[in-house]
Amino acid sequence: MTDRPDRPGPAGPPDAEGPLRVALLGCGTVGSEVARLLTESAADLGARIGRPVELAGIAVRRLNRERPGIDPALLTTDAQGLVEREDIDLVVEVIGGIEPARTLILAALNRGAAVVTANKALLAEDGSSLFTAAERAGTDLYFEAAVAGAIPIIRPLRESLVGDEITTVMGIVNGTTNFILDRMHTEGVGFSETLTLAQELGYAEADPTADVEGFDAAAKAAILASLAFHTRVRAEDVHREGITEVTRADIATAEAMGSVIKLVAICTLTDEPEPRVSVRVHPAMIPSSHPLAAVGGAYNAVFVESRSAGRLMFYGPGAGGSPTASAVMGDLVTVARNRVRGASGPGESSYARRQVAPIGDVVTSYHVSLSVADVTGVLASVAHCFAEHGVSLQTVRQEGTGGTPAVTTAEVHESGGSARLVIVTHAARDADLSATVEQLRCLPEVHEVISVMRVEGA
Amino acid sequence: MTDRPDRPGPAGPPDAEGPLRVALLGCGTVGSEVARLLTESAADLGARIGRPVELAGIAVRRLNRERPGIDPALLTTDAQGLVEREDIDLVVEVIGGIEPARTLILAALNRGAAVVTANKALLAEDGSSLFTAAERAGTDLYFEAAVAGAIPIIRPLRESLVGDEITTVMGIVNGTTNFILDRMHTEGVGFSETLTLAQELGYAEADPTADVEGFDAAAKAAILASLAFHTRVRAEDVHREGITEVTRADIATAEAMGSVIKLVAICTLTDEPEPRVSVRVHPAMIPSSHPLAAVGGAYNAVFVESRSAGRLMFYGPGAGGSPTASAVMGDLVTVARNRVRGASGPGESSYARRQVAPIGDVVTSYHVSLSVADVTGVLASVAHCFAEHGVSLQTVRQEGTGGTPAVTTAEVHESGGSARLVIVTHAARDADLSATVEQLRCLPEVHEVISVMRVEGA
Ligand SMILES: NC(=O)c1ccc[n+]([C@@H]2O[C@H](COP(=O)([O-])OP(=O)(O)OC[C@H]3O[C@@H](n4cnc5c(N)ncnc54)[C@H](OP(=O)(O)O)[C@@H]3O)[C@@H](O)[C@H]2O)c1
Ligand SMILES: NC(=O)c1ccc[n+]([C@@H]2O[C@H](COP(=O)([O-])OP(=O)(O)OC[C@H]3O[C@@H](n4cnc5c(N)ncnc54)[C@H](OP(=O)(O)O)[C@@H]3O)[C@@H](O)[C@H]2O)c1
Repeated sequence: MTDRPDRPGPAGPPDAEGPLRVALLGCGTVGSEVARLLTESAADLGARIGRPVELAGIAVRRLNRERPGIDPALLTTDAQGLVEREDIDLVVEVIGGIEPARTLILAALNRGAAVVTANKALLAEDGSSLFTAAERAGTDLYFEAAVAGAIPIIRPLRESLVGDEITTVMGIVNGTTNFILDRMHTEGVGFSETLTLAQELGYAEADPTADVEGFDAAAKAAILASLAFHTRVRAEDVHREGITEVTRADIATAEAMGSVIKLVAICTLTDEPEPRVSVRVHPAMIPSSHPLAAVGGAYNAVFVESRSAGRLMFYGPGAGGSPTASAVMGDLVTVARNRVRGASGPGESSYARRQVAPIGDVVTSYHVSLSVADVTGVLASVAHCFAEHGVSLQTVRQEGTGGTPAVTTAEVHESGGSARLVIVTHAARDADLSATVEQLRCLPEVHEVISVMRVEGA
Repeated sequence: MTDRPDRPGPAGPPDAEGPLRVALLGCGTVGSEVARLLTESAADLGARIGRPVELAGIAVRRLNRERPGIDPALLTTDAQGLVEREDIDLVVEVIGGIEPARTLILAALNRGAAVVTANKALLAEDGSSLFTAAERAGTDLYFEAAVAGAIPIIRPLRESLVGDEITTVMGIVNGTTNFILDRMHTEGVGFSETLTLAQELGYAEADPTADVEGFDAAAKAAILASLAFHTRVRAEDVHREGITEVTRADIATAEAMGSVIKLVAICTLTDEPEPRVSVRVHPAMIPSSHPLAAVGGAYNAVFVESRSAGRLMFYGPGAGGSPTASAVMGDLVTVARNRVRGASGPGESSYARRQVAPIGDVVTSYHVSLSVADVTGVLASVAHCFAEHGVSLQTVRQEGTGGTPAVTTAEVHESGGSARLVIVTHAARDADLSATVEQLRCLPEVHEVISVMRVEGA
């Protein structure tokens, strides 16, 4: 380690010999693990940083909660007072949500403290004001734990791949929905039944909205897209569909096609007419041969494709107190080392200022399942409807009572009565597919549009 | 970007407004791609760094070689003169080998330039003198490209997981041997035939020693172990066995056991009596269900297990000009950003100074294949020999002409004549297994010890 003194900053005169002092905001699932590691691994952490670290205070909501292993003298309910303490060098925010987290982080950054946070919701809602404050104070804002738990994905995007052109980031970044879809697949049960089970097992929260409606994944997608494409992307820019509408029948259909249904976050760079960013979260059919298809339970995985590196994959535990704390601790050592060296790590990179493309401009292929009148000519009407919107068909499969094997368009058997048509399109614009589906709904021969699902990773 | 000036250093007065100047040492497979990216992506790189970068000179061996897209005015054979140029801020070393690479890197670091290298051989042989020079000059030495090509693995170990306790790193880090073993498996052909094919296809070099004897993987293992365990580990500390002895029969036996043979680099932290580091490279049987088993062709993958994060995997292209250049460029932008901020990244962390355990102390399980006299009592003698050395048996399988299904020890059929015994042990000390094998060789009932292979990832 070099012996250069700390940078002088609004944090008050740094004590080059004494320990670096850490304020921990929140002591729940993640925070209690961070507190434990900071205490138990203090000697190793100090050696890695080049200076001792010390847990100087912990802000919580309730002082009277049982907290095994935590020194009660460290606890306070005055989080604001804690981040304003002159002697605090590093602040770890693991409260979550927008407020008071934002105010606390800004207060810390403004006085020159470095901040580590796991707060994807806040970063995706208002990351730029935090980055601006960090930049202005010449201090660090690190957030490896905000996406995909223990999996190092922020650093690879911010640093390892920063000399390359990333074209796609596609990931399973929400463990709760992955657990639910997995269970629906293996047990053959419906969504609500599986959600209840997930809640009982602690994989889903009492209010599961953030997970099952895709808000959590959308926040992560916004963070990933911002880093990958050097452009500010906020949660509200992300097209979002959750998994509440996924049925047992969808899962069975996917299985019959050699696919699985996953909730995916997809960030791509579109080429035409100028590079634009597209970010979306939705359930999709993924071929079983795709590596993301094998990501089970509460695990996460992120695929990255770039011009020079090619295809990379990162895999690991996506959540949980201990894995998330590992990511927080990695950031904590990094920002502490920076501080010892009087340095700071990379700031926000949003110079490219690319436009966010609307979902209608996304190009992908679709799986469409229709209940139709099984009369001569129905296939012609349906096919015509797709053709009119410029959507070409890859396979059409008719399922009667028993289901028939996949056949080409021309071979579909039309015998009268009621039948099910299962169609997979070639790549098409989302807007064209939507218009097709709208029109299909109006065709007298179409009894019902049973499901429409994107097909990814084929 | 902050506006703090460059640190004053032996590199001469920095020009805060002008471009950062890059010297490229070597312009072969990797270097030519780096040169191309530096030229073609100059605008993006400048925006990401916060200051323009400029390729200022390229050192090569032969001036008269065809180099499409390279400005001949940049070329020189005077590498030493190039790194000593006062205006050079950043040096990229992609010559390879020990000398002149070491002398050039040291010269660059000593005058305060930041260095990016892909040179695993040098880092594993004499990394500490390079790190010491970087530390003394307060400058950066980055080397993401030295292990597993485009896969971000150095940063995750140096930074993302630095707050955690890594217990195991296990990887497929040599594409050539992975390609050869893969082919032997799928085509059912022998080692030398496959090596010739790999050479024809450009997957193996004319002199394949570094790859097939495990030297390349051992260098990478040394680098990974040093980072994971905060201890200096050199290539010579790594127990190394190549793939030249792997036979078609081994591959077939592995297949019969539901396994594949992979050349793996394994770095572990042993617990008893005090934490020691064990680093080894050898072919091993891996169960087909293990994610590393599916890593095919020239791809690389690295598994990391740590106390808090759990099990992580990193996967991607392990070599090739373009993927390796991606890793070099990521480092280049990172060290350039550091320079603009007057900062430097993490240095060597070797405070733990753990002992390297000899291979004899490694504990794992083994697959042993014996040709024995098929007489009553042979199994008892063999089993006794294992027991005497404290190695307990998991399964014993007797293969006659046709091969018989797996049976437990007691059930092995002994009918006289000649037979093959295939044994899988429980976890045992390597030294005990070696002693067992030595003794087996002396047993009159044992005609031949056909193969001994470690079983990993079970
Ligand atoms: N859990 C995971 O697996 C995971 C994974 C990745 C990222 N994250 C992120 O990590 C953060 C923390 O998650 P978590 O699961 O640890 O949450 P949690 O278990 O609900 O813990 C929240 C903590 O914050 C404290 N708190 C709440 N409001 C506060 C206030 N106004 N002032 C001071 N303290 C307050 C709570 O105090 P009391 O203890 O008194 O209630 C509690 O200790 C969130 O941003 C989350 O998105 C979590
Ligand atoms: N290739 C890969 O896939 C890969 C992957 C990971 C890491 N790496 C590492 O990257 C480094 C470069 O590998 P490479 O495959 O690019 O090697 P390469 O194709 O053999 O290129 C070596 C370059 O160095 C130049 N050179 C050789 N001796 C020199 C000297 N004394 N002075 C100046 N220049 C000299 C050569 O000049 P001429 O052009 O005049 O011959 C050539 O341009 C090695 O450390 C390697 O281990 C390579």
